[in-house]
Amino acid sequence: MKINVNELSNHLNEEIIFSGFVDAVRDKKWVMFVILRDATGKVQLTIEKSEEANKTLLDIMSEVTVDSTVRVVGKVVSNEAVKLGGLEIIPSKIEVTSEALPLPFDYNNLDGVNIDTRMDFKWLDMRNRRNTLIRQVESCLTEGMRSFLYENHFTEIHSPKLIGTASESGSDVFEVKYFDREAYLAQSPQFYKQMALAGGLDRVFEVGPVFRAEKSNTNRHATEFTGFDLEFAYIDSYEDVMDLEEDLLIAGLKVVKERYGDEILEIFGKEVIIPTKPFPRIKLKDLYQQLHDRYQFEIPKEDIGDMNAEAEKLTYKFAMEEYNSEFIFIVDYAATKRPFYHMRDSEGKLQGYDLIWRGTEITSGAQREHRYEELVKNANEKGLGKDVEFYLQFFQYGCPPHGGFGIGLDRLTMLLLGLPSLKETQFLFRGPNRLTP
Amino acid sequence: MKINVNELSNHLNEEIIFSGFVDAVRDKKWVMFVILRDATGKVQLTIEKSEEANKTLLDIMSEVTVDSTVRVVGKVVSNEAVKLGGLEIIPSKIEVTSEALPLPFDYNNLDGVNIDTRMDFKWLDMRNRRNTLIRQVESCLTEGMRSFLYENHFTEIHSPKLIGTASESGSDVFEVKYFDREAYLAQSPQFYKQMALAGGLDRVFEVGPVFRAEKSNTNRHATEFTGFDLEFAYIDSYEDVMDLEEDLLIAGLKVVKERYGDEILEIFGKEVIIPTKPFPRIKLKDLYQQLHDRYQFEIPKEDIGDMNAEAEKLTYKFAMEEYNSEFIFIVDYAATKRPFYHMRDSEGKLQGYDLIWRGTEITSGAQREHRYEELVKNANEKGLGKDVEFYLQFFQYGCPPHGGFGIGLDRLTMLLLGLPSLKETQFLFRGPNRLTP
Repeated sequence: MKINVNELSNHLNEEIIFSGFVDAVRDKKWVMFVILRDATGKVQLTIEKSEEANKTLLDIMSEVTVDSTVRVVGKVVSNEAVKLGGLEIIPSKIEVTSEALPLPFDYNNLDGVNIDTRMDFKWLDMRNRRNTLIRQVESCLTEGMRSFLYENHFTEIHSPKLIGTASESGSDVFEVKYFDREAYLAQSPQFYKQMALAGGLDRVFEVGPVFRAEKSNTNRHATEFTGFDLEFAYIDSYEDVMDLEEDLLIAGLKVVKERYGDEILEIFGKEVIIPTKPFPRIKLKDLYQQLHDRYQFEIPKEDIGDMNAEAEKLTYKFAMEEYNSEFIFIVDYAATKRPFYHMRDSEGKLQGYDLIWRGTEITSGAQREHRYEELVKNANEKGLGKDVEFYLQFFQYGCPPHGGFGIGLDRLTMLLLGLPSLKETQFLFRGPNRLTP
Repeated sequence: MKINVNELSNHLNEEIIFSGFVDAVRDKKWVMFVILRDATGKVQLTIEKSEEANKTLLDIMSEVTVDSTVRVVGKVVSNEAVKLGGLEIIPSKIEVTSEALPLPFDYNNLDGVNIDTRMDFKWLDMRNRRNTLIRQVESCLTEGMRSFLYENHFTEIHSPKLIGTASESGSDVFEVKYFDREAYLAQSPQFYKQMALAGGLDRVFEVGPVFRAEKSNTNRHATEFTGFDLEFAYIDSYEDVMDLEEDLLIAGLKVVKERYGDEILEIFGKEVIIPTKPFPRIKLKDLYQQLHDRYQFEIPKEDIGDMNAEAEKLTYKFAMEEYNSEFIFIVDYAATKRPFYHMRDSEGKLQGYDLIWRGTEITSGAQREHRYEELVKNANEKGLGKDVEFYLQFFQYGCPPHGGFGIGLDRLTMLLLGLPSLKETQFLFRGPNRLTP
């Protein structure tokens, strides 16, 4: 197997195999320099033209196109003049393993390149270190959050995405031709997480695709994205859910900061800030007052009891000014603005919350209503009784009190890196007009 | 928050909160025993009838139905006469948090219960310790395998399940109504894994749903299941892929054995055996010979160059007899029987393998063909040229040699625990006639 760039210094003066992309060829009078690249960095091949034995190598490399891949046998030598780690490889054999056509754009300079072109050629766009890093950071963030859940005895589940009846609400759901009938794509694993708790698992999570047939073309929405969802039993209130979410995010961000913090700051100009517990918490009513007093903001009539995009932006400003916190929990939403399965207390007050990070809502959490009669009542109130009847069955056979939340993983990564859009964040974006590649 | 059963011994003589399901009520002349259950075990509540203060508790518990959930405030006391850990809880307060209807079947005795009924009421079926354990084992196995990949610098990706054109082959793919056009559900993340490698990530994996519109009703097939897929670059041959798969499975099985080995043996009668490297490897031709000589088995004409279910069963027998190994790699399949993207050497010999475990194929792996011209040739040979044209684009701009494999996670769990069917293995099974719950 090949040696990676970041391992080369352990192989000084050894003959090794190196494979990678051709990053650049610099053909000088007496020498040819070839810069090769793998996922861990770049290294220089140096081919002296005066050496008779190098003729074949020079022939090969004078014809190779940039971004072709090669497999090199060569010796790692120290050379202080070389910027790339003070090392170079003196090759004795080079094989071109794949040839690249001329690239349609320069992925190292994406400024003028249309986002649609970038998405069409995602495999080139990704070669920009910035975009490779997006994937690595998201993977790392997920790893950190998952580790936290495993340590806290959560069980990972995989709930079905093909479902027999449209859940939660009939709108915004994709229809699938399922042999001689219709199926639907799950908009969230919500009821299935809860079903697992009714089944006796006490803490579950799932990381998987969720599907939304929304024809909205905002930067924050996609028709398919990755949900990071969890649910756990035996809570006393939604405060327990907020507590756990704090710990989860801190755990994830810590791992990212440790591994990629410097590079994120360098490339994205964003500092990874580890929040401290507890995150500030404010009642929606008090928040309205603050936004009014500080920024002369009035929530539009149709949004009363809820937030909107501008309110979220200003809330971030407020949280920074007042608490020096990037995160802020908002509680006491109007029950009419929230899903029927969020619990309300005896006075009808909603037992749920939203979490705002850097001006965008990243999660809705709640203690869930686990009592069948209350659930049916709330569903009927929203005119959903018939739609969800089927899903509510499992609450009739004993179901412990519980709560949970879902985070859009792509959105979290977008905010972490300060990206302008999910089109840049997702490995392969899906929107109303985008099903490729 | 509540204390779990497995933590009670740390709280001797303390007043605690305990919540759980009502497992059984034993109403004796002088005392009422209530067995409560959570995800970690069972505990006894003891309520003396002679105590005046217990009247309310006795009223509540004499009316409660089995599998309702309760929240108890009580004192943990030591009592050697109690079988459940020598502990009991003396309650001072009990609240019924949810009431259970009479159960449609006894989940502790599933022998006579139809598998369809069990699936209809999965949240009850799961309460059988055996079935909770299935979920925990699968989660643990995934955790172990993922950890191994993280340690080996793999990046986790989430590729889209909604795709614009039917991939690999047009058949067996679900159609989705996507606004005013058609979309399809991905049958595997194969091309997307490869695309990520062309994008400069050198090692990627994905754990997510895959969809197969197959109308087969075997025990080993489902229309939706969880794929554990990986791909990595810069390999020298498919031997590297087999090596990595060995390490991955060993890592996963080790964690499972450590955490659940004893309980698996007790409940499923299956020993978790950690295989040793290398797993035996045999050429298909030689295997045919062995199966013929030992068991008078002839591969049917239509399957020549490939395996079938009976051959897989006998191969397990052979592997145990000859190598004392539960695992065996088979190589040298006929290229005509394999996907076009598996590499062939200059003599047309397929650079791929199958892995058989306990009589069932669990994975197909290969070095992939990364050279565009060869890929197009192979795809045309299979009559797929037009179908996959779109996906092959990304091979034209430089793509390192690579290989990988996919494992059906549900199938792996099924074999690990010796389960008879995916219907028992999956959290919520999906088949041609099953879209609920």
